[in-house]
Amino acid sequence: MKEVAKRAGVAMSSVSRVLSGHPDVSEPMRQRVMTAVDELGYQPDLLAQGLRSRTTYSVGFVVANIANPVLAGAIRGAERRLRAAGYSLLLTDSEGSPVLDAAQIELLQRRRVDGLLLSLSDEQDTQTAAAIRALDEPIVLMDRDLPPGISAPRALFDHRKGMRQAARHLLELGHRDVALIIGGPFRPAHERRAGLEATLRRGGARCAVFEGEFSVKHGYATTVEILNRVPRPTAIVAGGNMLMHGALRALVEADVQLGQDISFVGCDDTAVAEFHRPAIAVVHRDVEAIGEAGAELLLDALDERRDRKMKDVTLPTKFIDRPSCAPPPRRSRRAKNRSGGDPALSR
Amino acid sequence: MKEVAKRAGVAMSSVSRVLSGHPDVSEPMRQRVMTAVDELGYQPDLLAQGLRSRTTYSVGFVVANIANPVLAGAIRGAERRLRAAGYSLLLTDSEGSPVLDAAQIELLQRRRVDGLLLSLSDEQDTQTAAAIRALDEPIVLMDRDLPPGISAPRALFDHRKGMRQAARHLLELGHRDVALIIGGPFRPAHERRAGLEATLRRGGARCAVFEGEFSVKHGYATTVEILNRVPRPTAIVAGGNMLMHGALRALVEADVQLGQDISFVGCDDTAVAEFHRPAIAVVHRDVEAIGEAGAELLLDALDERRDRKMKDVTLPTKFIDRPSCAPPPRRSRRAKNRSGGDPALSR
Repeated sequence: MKEVAKRAGVAMSSVSRVLSGHPDVSEPMRQRVMTAVDELGYQPDLLAQGLRSRTTYSVGFVVANIANPVLAGAIRGAERRLRAAGYSLLLTDSEGSPVLDAAQIELLQRRRVDGLLLSLSDEQDTQTAAAIRALDEPIVLMDRDLPPGISAPRALFDHRKGMRQAARHLLELGHRDVALIIGGPFRPAHERRAGLEATLRRGGARCAVFEGEFSVKHGYATTVEILNRVPRPTAIVAGGNMLMHGALRALVEADVQLGQDISFVGCDDTAVAEFHRPAIAVVHRDVEAIGEAGAELLLDALDERRDRKMKDVTLPTKFIDRPSCAPPPRRSRRAKNRSGGDPALSR
Repeated sequence: MKEVAKRAGVAMSSVSRVLSGHPDVSEPMRQRVMTAVDELGYQPDLLAQGLRSRTTYSVGFVVANIANPVLAGAIRGAERRLRAAGYSLLLTDSEGSPVLDAAQIELLQRRRVDGLLLSLSDEQDTQTAAAIRALDEPIVLMDRDLPPGISAPRALFDHRKGMRQAARHLLELGHRDVALIIGGPFRPAHERRAGLEATLRRGGARCAVFEGEFSVKHGYATTVEILNRVPRPTAIVAGGNMLMHGALRALVEADVQLGQDISFVGCDDTAVAEFHRPAIAVVHRDVEAIGEAGAELLLDALDERRDRKMKDVTLPTKFIDRPSCAPPPRRSRRAKNRSGGDPALSR
């Protein structure tokens, strides 16, 4: 590297910045260094460098499911923030499997990342918790509860808030029999359920909960089941974008008119919701923001390892009303004629 | 590692399989080895191992844009195949930037991956080509043309086939003025354009081509422009799923009825197309299959480095007719009364 700096006529630190892919490097500087690298046939070796300095300027992101479009947003936000600080991001996909979560954490550790962002497939899995406890590197949990025996900062969404708003809206429209489709052994599922269920019950409504995996398949199969129930719930809430995808597929196939035959609330303004008619009411959140917030927490931890703060950052969610929600069919006249809210709500 | 094997009472190869996250390891075996690892406080260090053996059993995948849902499918297919062969996959996201492509290739090289899958943001970029030439590791290009001075095996789609079928269908319906929205300095764009343009022109139709970046934004802005043209093209073809997303957004906003006011062909059966009414005609392809095919080519190269074959694998694409395509408005009566094909087609 000294030779490269000498040949290029630049400082060692400039060579280091170019070779680490630092964003604040001018194009002429980059070309000057790379020309010298080429001429000398120099092979910068991060593994050997890492063995010496114990720092590789890279961060691992264990992604529960790369096919979840919401996670693409979080990755984008995290990568942007980390890159600005000179770090590269290495991603892995666990396909929703806790066995893979544990294996990916071990892989990234052996690849000598400086820290990890964890969007776990199952926050209660004991193998995953063991893999995390074996880490010396700082971690940040991405919208997950702490696995047993772990303490770490977290970037979170306030899922209860948006779900409470959705529940209040359904109660105001007159719904008293609601089905919630929920999935995944992780925090967003628990929180969404807690927010919706408590508010509905306090308002005097039934809330039938259908738990399963966090997948399009579970959303689809459960919706088929709900539509065949007697009496049929007057509203369906899908607690996650992939569950919403499956639920909407089943509703379209059954030719059920949302807002007329049944009301529907989904999660996240993904492409799935965009082209559905009528428009889909959703609990909205800023997914890039959680990526940035998680990266920021990790950068804090990397800066001051000895004095790590265990602070959490919580971002809001918000219910957006759209025509997929309307008064339930049999009660629509009564609900429309009411001037105020539902008396059950003021309890 | 010898001590771990001894303590666990298993073979060294079993320890190696457990630590590399190999899928064919029984849960009791895994726990036995991990218990011994914990008890001995053994820290397997892939970096140090890599320095010795020059093999890390990991593959890098440079992904042009992690937000493109089609790439999620390719990643899934590649990871599944690689994992079955004992390899882990490390992903990077270039956000469509060739500068990042080059930086990510260098990063993965310094992380000592054994090989790379490349879905480049710009296959003609000179910095990217320089980064690839500096690699000793085998690479496979994922649906990309070879950058200048590079030879490598490729996993490809036959985009021309599906686009030729789409063009023939539009000609048969009577369309003579078609707009093509295309984006990205990479192979799928060139190939889709070549297939559609040649067939339409041979059939006596105009084909106005709107080139730009491969993004939802370009699809949206261009569609707004096309709708304001006088005379207005009678059909729009969006050459990629993200361009389709933007185009459909503009068409919905303008309240244009597909199949009545204008015909529309998109690419890929993504969530965007699923809930649009009428259903969207698309050029379909199996995106997981290209991930598997690319991984297979790379595994070949890793097995027999000295005798690397430069073979390509090409997978088909297929036009699927749906109601978003219909005869053009003014000519619909004539087109419907025709019993055979368009005479222009038999030329």
